Amino acid sequence: MSRWQPDARERLERAALQLFTEQGFAATTVPQITQRAGLTTRTFFRHFADKREVLFGSDEMLRLGAVLIAEAPPDADPAVLLIDSLTAFAATHLEGRRAEIRQRREIILSDQGLRERDLRKRDAVSETVRDALTKRGLPPVTAAMLAGTSATLFSVALQEWLDSDDDRTLASIMLDGMQALRAALGHVPGPAPAVTQRP
Amino acid sequence: MSRWQPDARERLERAALQLFTEQGFAATTVPQITQRAGLTTRTFFRHFADKREVLFGSDEMLRLGAVLIAEAPPDADPAVLLIDSLTAFAATHLEGRRAEIRQRREIILSDQGLRERDLRKRDAVSETVRDALTKRGLPPVTAAMLAGTSATLFSVALQEWLDSDDDRTLASIMLDGMQALRAALGHVPGPAPAVTQRP
Repeated sequence: MSRWQPDARERLERAALQLFTEQGFAATTVPQITQRAGLTTRTFFRHFADKREVLFGSDEMLRLGAVLIAEAPPDADPAVLLIDSLTAFAATHLEGRRAEIRQRREIILSDQGLRERDLRKRDAVSETVRDALTKRGLPPVTAAMLAGTSATLFSVALQEWLDSDDDRTLASIMLDGMQALRAALGHVPGPAPAVTQRP
Repeated sequence: MSRWQPDARERLERAALQLFTEQGFAATTVPQITQRAGLTTRTFFRHFADKREVLFGSDEMLRLGAVLIAEAPPDADPAVLLIDSLTAFAATHLEGRRAEIRQRREIILSDQGLRERDLRKRDAVSETVRDALTKRGLPPVTAAMLAGTSATLFSVALQEWLDSDDDRTLASIMLDGMQALRAALGHVPGPAPAVTQRP
């Protein structure tokens, strides 16, 4: 059992989600998870800091997102860059896994501590994106508004996708959400942007 | 001391903020606050459920905001309605009180439990606004995007205002933030809104 297991992480995740759903998050212990997965607690702690991290994943995605924003061409449009990053993340990590992600969301909503961690994580993502946009030279308020909007878009589109049973992809819901916001802001007082179409 | 005190709430708030700043939020007790204010704990609990509520205020403002959105004329533009509500709230509750609100923010940032309550409150505000917009007939995704954007705008503009020492009003920073977002979304792919100017 202590040898390297190529699919250990996935087995631990699957076992944890099963147990959280069956008996509740609070009542589930790490030894129960490793027993169900047929692995050692040592292996568990090689992959996760604690049982909550099974639900929230690592921050690897966040770091990758920040790198993506930092390394995009200087003239890339920031809003387009953000929506491209979000839809790319959806395509590689979320599309096709709706049932499992629904199960995770239900566990998170069932526990106040997990709901708070979810909010903190959303806030941390927003700060990371804001800092990455500021480093690209965006004015601080614009960077913060775009970062908050990205976090809202991710959360709103994810919820809509999880609540739906149709064939729309998460990426297409994200694009619709951004367009809906853009259209809704069309009557906000103040000068319209000088350029409204891409060259 | 037990007679009705017309300025009791303000005196309790002032005493609490002083003590939180002097000795920390966690170390401050309700009896210390009432002693400093020269009032009874009974009076304290007539105004606040606990010492945290001194920092976050009641939800009266939130209920008023929901009523304002619900009772606006049916043809009112939702984004304009939101920005009008936010700037009106800033004018009546925040402008002119920058030093005190800065002090509150520092106390909140000093304590993890308070930071989490702040995030939960922001999330609750966003949900209330979303529900009020949905009741006006807005599609759910549009309502959720606008509600999240309002919460972002409030938080971003407040931070910019508290971090600044110039003469800009919070309301003018809010208007600038909304315009910055609108301009930043100008290149998002998809059809431009049919109407971009107010009649």
